[in-house]
Amino acid sequence: MLKVLFSSTPERWESYREVLPAKLAAAGVEAEVSLTHAAEEVDYIVLAPGGPIADFAPFTKARAVMCLWAGVENVVANETLTQPLTRMVDTGLRDGMVEWVAGHVLRHHLGIDAHIANPDQCWDPVAPPLARDRPVTILGIGELGAACGQALARLGFPVTGWSRSPKDIPGLTCHHGFEGLRAALAGARIVVLLVPLTPETENLMNAATLALPAPGAVLLNPGRGALIDDDALLEALDTGQIGHATLDTFRIEPLPADHPFWSDPKVTVTPHIASETRPDTASEVIAENIRRAEAGEPLLYLVDRARGY
Amino acid sequence: MLKVLFSSTPERWESYREVLPAKLAAAGVEAEVSLTHAAEEVDYIVLAPGGPIADFAPFTKARAVMCLWAGVENVVANETLTQPLTRMVDTGLRDGMVEWVAGHVLRHHLGIDAHIANPDQCWDPVAPPLARDRPVTILGIGELGAACGQALARLGFPVTGWSRSPKDIPGLTCHHGFEGLRAALAGARIVVLLVPLTPETENLMNAATLALPAPGAVLLNPGRGALIDDDALLEALDTGQIGHATLDTFRIEPLPADHPFWSDPKVTVTPHIASETRPDTASEVIAENIRRAEAGEPLLYLVDRARGY
Repeated sequence: MLKVLFSSTPERWESYREVLPAKLAAAGVEAEVSLTHAAEEVDYIVLAPGGPIADFAPFTKARAVMCLWAGVENVVANETLTQPLTRMVDTGLRDGMVEWVAGHVLRHHLGIDAHIANPDQCWDPVAPPLARDRPVTILGIGELGAACGQALARLGFPVTGWSRSPKDIPGLTCHHGFEGLRAALAGARIVVLLVPLTPETENLMNAATLALPAPGAVLLNPGRGALIDDDALLEALDTGQIGHATLDTFRIEPLPADHPFWSDPKVTVTPHIASETRPDTASEVIAENIRRAEAGEPLLYLVDRARGY
Repeated sequence: MLKVLFSSTPERWESYREVLPAKLAAAGVEAEVSLTHAAEEVDYIVLAPGGPIADFAPFTKARAVMCLWAGVENVVANETLTQPLTRMVDTGLRDGMVEWVAGHVLRHHLGIDAHIANPDQCWDPVAPPLARDRPVTILGIGELGAACGQALARLGFPVTGWSRSPKDIPGLTCHHGFEGLRAALAGARIVVLLVPLTPETENLMNAATLALPAPGAVLLNPGRGALIDDDALLEALDTGQIGHATLDTFRIEPLPADHPFWSDPKVTVTPHIASETRPDTASEVIAENIRRAEAGEPLLYLVDRARGY
C-alpha cells in the first residue's frame, strides 16, 4: 500500500479526500492518501497551494513531487527538492483559462463595459469591427496559451503567439525568443500574458515592451503578476498607450487595498479566478502519474528544473 | 445597362456608393446604381433600412427586391410588393452576431459585471463553473442561430437549439415546433433569441415561457424586440426568475428614454449593434443575386412570403 501525502490546507483537502482515492483506485493504484503521513514513509507528495513543506529532505523515500498548480515558480528553486517534479496540466484548468481569456477578449473587443454602466442612456448604434480586424497576441503558447489562441482563432481573431523556443501551433502566427518579441507585439490590439514566470520573464512587460502594441491596446494578465512592471503599466495607462488592463494575477494576493490598480478606472481586477485546478480532473492526472511511476513509465508534465517550468 | 435603385438614406448610400458598383462589376454585371432612378425604369431594388418605398406598384419593371437586412418582417406583409424578395445572409453580419452572442454569454457565465464595478474591492477567489456545466438554449437556429450555437458548443457549452421545423445541427441538441419549446427551455441557464419575428413568434417570451428556464437564467435578445412581452420580462426580473436580460433589440428604437429597461439594474441595453450588414460582404451577395437573376438562376435567400422569412 503506497503512502501519498496530500500537502495542503485542511480546507483544500476536503475537496480531494474522496475524489483522489477514487481516481487512484480507478487507475489500479493501491494507496493511502493523507494530510499527515510521517515524512520518511511517504512514497509520493501531492503539493497543493498552501502546502506546508519548505524542506523536502526528510522525505527520503518519496519518488516524485506532483504539483496541483500549473505555475511552479515557487517550488522549482527549492534546493532541498531532489525528486522529479511535475506540474499540473488539467483539462478543467485549461478550459477555465480558455473561457476567462475568450470572455475578456470579447468583452474588450465588443466594448461591453460602456453598455453595462450607461447612466446617460447613450444610444450610439455603431457596431464594433469584426474580430478578423482585431489582432490578438498571446505571450506564452504552452498548453494554456495554445488552447486560448486556438479558441480565439476559431472566433475569427488573427492570433499571434510567442514562446521561448520555436513552436508551430496550427491557426497561429508564431514567433519565438527574445528577438522575436518585438515582431510578436507589434500592432497587437489585445495582448494576453501566459508565459511561465522565470527570472528571464519577470517584468517582461516593462516600459519598452508596453510601447510595442498598437496605441490603446488592452492587456490581459491571467498568467503571473510579476510578469508586469506595475509602475510601467500604470504609466502606460496614464498616457493611453495601454487602453485598459484586466488583471487576474498580482505580485501580492489578495491585491493590497491601497494598490493603485484598485482605483484606476482603466484597470479591472479579477481575484485569481481565471483558472483553477478542478479536483476531479486533476485527481485523474495525479493518479495516472503515480501509476506511471510505479510502472516505470515516464511521468507526464515533468518540470525541466533548469528551464524553470 | 441595368438600373439598380439603392433605396435608403443618403448617409447609408455613402457606405455603398463605391463598393456596390465595384462588386457588381466584379460579378460581370453592367449596372448603374443610384438613389434616384425613375421608378418605371428600375430593374432591381436594393432595400436598406430607412429606404423610403412604401408602395412598390410603380416599379413595373423591377424583377427582384433585395433587402440589406436579415429580418424582413417590416416588408414581407407589404401587399404592393409582388416581386421576389430576398433577405440578407452576409458573412459579416453572421460573424458579428456570433461575436456579440459569444461575448455576452461568456460575460454572464464568468460574472464579469461584478469585477468591472467593484467599489468595495471585493476579493472573492471562487472560480465560476466551467462552460460544460452552463446549458445554453438558442431559440431560432437558422443561419445566425446555428452559427452562434456551434461557436458556443466549441467553447464547451452544452447547447440546445429550437426551430419551427425540424433541424439537425451538428453539436446541438435540437427541438422543434411549439410543442418542443418546453423541452428546449427547461433547465436553460442562458437563453438566446434569434427566431424571425412573425405573427406566431411575437411575444414568444411571455409569462408562461419565461417561467421555463432555470431560476435566475439570463436572457439575451439580439433578435427582434417584439419577441418579448416587455411587461412579463420586467415581472420575471423582479421575482428573480430571470436573473438578467441583455437586450439589443426593442419594439421602438432607439429605446425611449422613459422605458423601464433603461433604469432596471438587471437589464443591459445595447443599441442594436449585435450585428450589422457590412457593405463589402453584403454587396457581394447583392451582386451575386443580380447576376443569378439575369442568368435565370435561382435567387439566394429568397423569402417564403407565407412563412414570413
